Formats: sequence, structure tokens, C-alpha cells
Amino acid sequence: MKELIVDLGERSYPIYIGEGMISGISGFFEKHGIRKASPLMIVTDEHVAARHLDSVANGLRAGGFDVVTKIVPSGETSKSLAILEDIVTDALQAGLDRSSCIVALGGGVVGDLAGFAAASYMRGIRFVQIPTTILAHDSSVGGKVAVNHKLAKNVIGAFHQPEFVLYDTSTLNTLPDREVRAGFSEVIKHGLIWDAAFVDWCRDHADRLLALEPEALATALYTGCKVKAAVVSQDEKENGLRAILNLGHTIGHALEAVAGYNELLHGEAISIGMVGAARLAMKLGHPESIYRETKEILSRFGLPVRLPEHMDTEQIMSAMMHDKKFKEGKMVFIIPTAIGKVEINHQISVEWVRETVEQLKREE
Amino acid sequence: MKELIVDLGERSYPIYIGEGMISGISGFFEKHGIRKASPLMIVTDEHVAARHLDSVANGLRAGGFDVVTKIVPSGETSKSLAILEDIVTDALQAGLDRSSCIVALGGGVVGDLAGFAAASYMRGIRFVQIPTTILAHDSSVGGKVAVNHKLAKNVIGAFHQPEFVLYDTSTLNTLPDREVRAGFSEVIKHGLIWDAAFVDWCRDHADRLLALEPEALATALYTGCKVKAAVVSQDEKENGLRAILNLGHTIGHALEAVAGYNELLHGEAISIGMVGAARLAMKLGHPESIYRETKEILSRFGLPVRLPEHMDTEQIMSAMMHDKKFKEGKMVFIIPTAIGKVEINHQISVEWVRETVEQLKREE
Repeated sequence: MKELIVDLGERSYPIYIGEGMISGISGFFEKHGIRKASPLMIVTDEHVAARHLDSVANGLRAGGFDVVTKIVPSGETSKSLAILEDIVTDALQAGLDRSSCIVALGGGVVGDLAGFAAASYMRGIRFVQIPTTILAHDSSVGGKVAVNHKLAKNVIGAFHQPEFVLYDTSTLNTLPDREVRAGFSEVIKHGLIWDAAFVDWCRDHADRLLALEPEALATALYTGCKVKAAVVSQDEKENGLRAILNLGHTIGHALEAVAGYNELLHGEAISIGMVGAARLAMKLGHPESIYRETKEILSRFGLPVRLPEHMDTEQIMSAMMHDKKFKEGKMVFIIPTAIGKVEINHQISVEWVRETVEQLKREE
Repeated sequence: MKELIVDLGERSYPIYIGEGMISGISGFFEKHGIRKASPLMIVTDEHVAARHLDSVANGLRAGGFDVVTKIVPSGETSKSLAILEDIVTDALQAGLDRSSCIVALGGGVVGDLAGFAAASYMRGIRFVQIPTTILAHDSSVGGKVAVNHKLAKNVIGAFHQPEFVLYDTSTLNTLPDREVRAGFSEVIKHGLIWDAAFVDWCRDHADRLLALEPEALATALYTGCKVKAAVVSQDEKENGLRAILNLGHTIGHALEAVAGYNELLHGEAISIGMVGAARLAMKLGHPESIYRETKEILSRFGLPVRLPEHMDTEQIMSAMMHDKKFKEGKMVFIIPTAIGKVEINHQISVEWVRETVEQLKREE
């Protein structure tokens, strides 16, 4: 088992990464002083519940915890105020008090939803995350929790750090192949913004990672979390540095907004976005090798690097203009200046971005 | 103008108290670095809007601020997730961004609602409070913001400190007499828990205070806020000491829950509750003078000290049992041990409380 501390002063917390930890789950809760006298609520979705809820809930009950479960529909639509209200109804009826804890068992949607429930229930109770996707390695660090509004994603939320994160890699075995690949997109991003040696390591271990070989997987998740933790420690409330985590996200979010349902997963969209950022780097005079290596590592993991041709450039541009990273007439992009290094550039011309979107449709 | 700093480390903020400050409102916003480039939203209710919205909004517009206004229905029912969602809709449509500010113009309901909107919009934006009731002197210190759930009050919320509080005593002139009296209940409470000399001062200045004489009013609000600030500074997240602010609230909340609509205002309910706490103090062996003086000062302000006889004792008891201050079989009460001094007592027997409720129906 690997242990990583996310260093946030008095809000610091550990991430435990390893195989089969759910079998000893109540030990982790005891170690962190989660109360047995107050009910604890596990929030999960229908898909994850079918696979992992029994082992988690029964493990905690066997350890003497008073467990309540709440299953929400799978998918992004559960990140709503209506579902939040529903969770609070159940929490009140089950008698959750200020000493209670909410456990998020699932991917990013469940983490965001259950995390905001924990952040706002009685003005904040304890929160534990048990991620069950590779992508969730990203959202398990940093404490950003939120629900969506019909006009914008993640617009109602909080910063609420968990007590600890329990990352049992054996829960990842049941992930569909496409989600596995898309999950590695954020892992690779963490290398591209911060750690060139990790990018090399990912390249060398691509086959083992895609086969979900436990040891390689634990190392990749550990290093990905570590990069994010380093960034978040320096900028908990997203005032500056944290923006570098958005490499590939300006174009990526626009693609997600314009694409049809399920055409592009988040990891796929930001994969294309990262190639776009590398193209912009070239226009700024940075070496062509950044672009070549970015594309190569993403392709190695079977991630898309070409923008679907049928997607309308102007629609993509317009989606980007509404993105909060577009500020006062200038476009802000995270630009790679080397593999493992990025800068926040506030001076990217709209014309270059349009050109890049066109070029992304012709990537090979 | 008086200025009081609520000392919360990097979240410290000032409360400005004085007469007629709204006429120079934009100076305060400039001083605190509120951005003119990002839209600012004033949230208020129908009653307050009719009296004060124009002067506040026009004052800010004249200073070059980009002002959006949001008027919600008056009354506790506006503290809901539905109204929160509605505020977020307006905020998004008006283009509020992470540098924007939400201004609460009104009493406790508006402060709690707008404060939670500011706490959760884009995971937290800036917040300014302009209280327009005496009671709001209490909620303007401490950063507790929340909306209600159909099963419980204030159960979805956050701790979110304002940038500053602008307390213009001239807005209080339009308050109905009953609300004025009820507002002084929390002012007196702050004396009873912390500052015996302030209780004396209130007794000596009762006539001037009830006549809303500006200088006396400013002193009373300043001292009330100062007591609360002292307590909150030592316990921002309500883990211990802050409980003493609940003097009179255990019985008071139960009375509010059992009473019919508008039968008891919050300040009236806790007035009766404070007399109850003083009765419990007597049973614990504390001097009878505490009870006598508590009753005397509350009566001096025209506040009720007797529990309406038609209210059912068992219903009141049962409402108290559901109160979060009832923990693991024991009842927790804030007990006065002298005028200006209280203790948190976890060992109050249910039988004593029942007896006290009965006695409160027979107060003279």
C-alpha cells in the first residue's frame, strides 16, 4: 500500500493506494476517528452499487459502524440541487448529525455530489472518498466539490477536503476499456504539466497500465495524485497556479459542450485539447518536439488526438468564449514550454485558436 | 461611525456601524477592493427593497459599480434551495464571475440566503452584508449562512465570512415596534452571557434604545457585535465555546417550532428561553438574583417572559428532544452562573426541564 499526504495545513489528508484494501475498510475509518455512535452515509450510483456497495457497507457494519446507504442514478444528471436535497432528506431521516460522515463510493460524479452534500449538510460534516475510476484520481485531490446548474456545470459548490481517500485498485478491474483509456488522459496530463520522467515512465509501462496490472497502476495513480497534490498545496482555493491543471481543458470543455452525448468522454476531449495546446506552443516558438511527444504518448494509450471533422469550428469557438478561462477579450491558455513544464499564457489570439481547431481536424 | 474588527485571521473583517452611511456606500466598496469590472448582485426581499434598494443600488451605480438586483419574497420560506437556484440563474445570466460580489441587503433571512449563494456560487465569491434589522446584528457576525430543508431549519449551509458589514442605523427607523423589541432580545443575550456592565447599560438606556436614538443604538449594536465577535474568534466553526451563544435557544427553538405562525418572533421565544435557563440555574444552586435580573431586563424591553399557557408541554419537550443540542440521552443547556457569565452544562435532567416549562407558564 502506498500513502500520499495532500499537504493543506490543518486540512491535510492521506490518500491510500493499493489492492484489496476494502476488505479491511473499517480499520481505516477507525484510524481516522470516524464515530461509530453517529450514522454514516455511503453515497454511490446504481452501477457502482451493483459491484461494490455490499463489500463496503458490510465491511463497515462488521466493524461496528452504523451504515446508511444512498443510491443515486448513474451519470452527470445526478449532480443537481434536487438530488442534493434528496440526500439531505435521507440524512435527516437517518439521524446524521454534526459528528457523522458521508462516504463517496464511485467516480467523479458521486465524489462531487456526495462531497458537496458533506460540505453543506449542517454547514459541513466529515467526508471520505473511495474512488472507483481512474479519472477519479484527479477529483480525489483538491477538495473541489459541486453540483451543476441547468446553465452551467459545477457552478454551485465548495472546497471541502476529505478525511482520507481510500483508492482500492481492485475496484478498477470492472471498468470498460474505453473508460480505462480516458482515465489515463488525466494521469498523463499530470506528467505533461509537472514531471517529464513520469511521462517517460508512462510510455514504458503503457501495456501494463492498460492491462490494469496492480503495481504499475498504483504507481501511476500515486504519481498522478502527487503532482496534483503539489499544485493544490500551493493554491488551495484556485487563485493562480492551480490553473495549470487545466492543460487541454479550454478546448476540451468546448468539445464536450458541442459533442453529442457520449461522443467524447472527458478524458478523450482533453486529450485532443492537449494536442491543441501543444500546437499553440509551436506557434509561440516552442520546440516542435513538445507537440510530437504529446501526441505520441496520448496515442500510445489509445486516446484520440484528432478532432471529429463534423464538429463545427464556430460552435467550438463560441463554446470557448463562454468558458470562464476567457477573460476580458484575451484568451487564457495553459501552454507547454517543455515536456513536464507549462506556463499560463493570457495573450493567446482568437485567430490562432481558430487555426488550431482547424488543424486538429487534420491530425494524423 | 464605529468600527469593529471580527478577528478571524485571514478571514477577519470589519463591521461599520453608524448613521447615514449608505449615502457614501460606494466608498466602502472601493476601500475593500470590490471590482467594478465584474457585476455585483444585491439580494434583498420585497419589504426591504421598497424602502432601501434604490438608495443602495443607485449609490453603487453612481460610484461606477455594475449592479444587478434580485428581489426575493419576504419571509423564512425564501431560505430554500429553489430560491438559491433562482439566484444562481440570475447570477449566471448577469455574468457574475469569480471576482464578483453578492450583497445581502436585509435581515437574517436575506443574510443567510444571499450568504449561502455567495458561499457556493462558483465555490465561493465575495460577500457584503448590509443589515436592516436589529436582530441581524447577531447574524452579521460569525459567517453562518444557510437555507432550510422541509424537515429542518438551516441544515444546508456553510461558514462564509463577509468582506465587511455596513450597519446603517438609519435603516432601522422603519422597523415595526414589535420587531424592534424582539431584536433587542439578542442584544441583551450578548450582555447576559459575557458582559454584566453592558446589561446595566442596556437597563439605563432602555428608553433611548426603544426610541431608536442613533447614538445609543450604535453603542448597543457595537457592543452586541463585539461580544459575538469575541466568542466567534475563539471558535469559528462551532466546536465548543460558540455554544454559549445559544443561551435561551434550546427552549426558544422548541417554542418557535410549536407556536403557530407569528405567535412568537425569534427574539420573543429566546426571551422566554432565557428566563427558563435562569430557572434551571436556580435549580443548580445558582443565586435567585440571576433569575430576577434576567426577567427584569427582558421585561424592561417589553419582551415576553411567560410561556403562552395554551402551548402543550409535551409537544415542547418533544421538539427539544429533536434539537441538535440534545445529545446521547442528556440535555445540554447554557446556564447562567452570574449576570454576564454562563456555562455549558451537559447534565440537565429532562425532568427539570419539564418542570421549568411548566413554571414558565406561570411567570408573572
